[in-house]
Amino acid sequence: MPWAMSDLHTRMMQLALSEARNAATVGEVPIGAVVYTADGTVLAKAHNQPQAMADATAHAELLAARGALAMRMPATPYLDDCYIAVTLEPCAMCAQALSWLRVKAIYFGAYDVKSGGVENGAQVLKHAHHKPEVIGGLCEVECAELMKDFFAKRR
Amino acid sequence: MPWAMSDLHTRMMQLALSEARNAATVGEVPIGAVVYTADGTVLAKAHNQPQAMADATAHAELLAARGALAMRMPATPYLDDCYIAVTLEPCAMCAQALSWLRVKAIYFGAYDVKSGGVENGAQVLKHAHHKPEVIGGLCEVECAELMKDFFAKRR
Repeated sequence: MPWAMSDLHTRMMQLALSEARNAATVGEVPIGAVVYTADGTVLAKAHNQPQAMADATAHAELLAARGALAMRMPATPYLDDCYIAVTLEPCAMCAQALSWLRVKAIYFGAYDVKSGGVENGAQVLKHAHHKPEVIGGLCEVECAELMKDFFAKRR
Repeated sequence: MPWAMSDLHTRMMQLALSEARNAATVGEVPIGAVVYTADGTVLAKAHNQPQAMADATAHAELLAARGALAMRMPATPYLDDCYIAVTLEPCAMCAQALSWLRVKAIYFGAYDVKSGGVENGAQVLKHAHHKPEVIGGLCEVECAELMKDFFAKRR
């Protein structure tokens, strides 16, 4: 392993932030996600794109997770050796999806008081069979400012 | 409209049951879903297939919803004039997805004490911005027995 695990997650969050910036460039809400393994292999990254995909459920986490599943050889329904770094607290849909996929841990950046479903709202993992480890607030300021800037420019 | 609305939802649940039976035939848990409009147009139907798709999130509702979105012309991110009939109470992931998609109403068959997220578990719609109408227990006995039979044969 070429770096310490704590460095790994921060590096991956920086990648997720880069995805989030890509989203803003194309007019989508700037949320990015990366699915990776402990050795630093990136299986997939994605940003939010409900507009481009004409699908209100096209959240960064779901797209990255589906991309990661497509990389599995042999194919399995789970991402049980995987981590996800996402710039915003997952909503109830994404949090439950990551539980069904049995990801090891969820690292998220900014907290989402309005639509989050992990620490906020329905807190779905409290009821889930598989409870991934959750670490919130990684690179929080950077993740939150990206969102704030995006919405400030829109108004 | 060629039939009363209450008949419509029951007919659609029967279609969903047919999808659920198809799932059992190929060894998947028998859960089926149909997305339709008030005039009786079926936009999409699907069954659970996490094994075949190697994706633990490949629930009937998500697959039917994505199929329905693909039918929209012009493309929109929402299913706001649509209904869904599903043989089992949706989990937290699917319930939140249907909320993001702004479906008008969710008709479900059997209640799911273990993994449901609407009436059971995290009850995610209580926290959702868009709250589709929910009618549980439509054709409940038929939906529940299909599940019971499937798991009885497996053990």
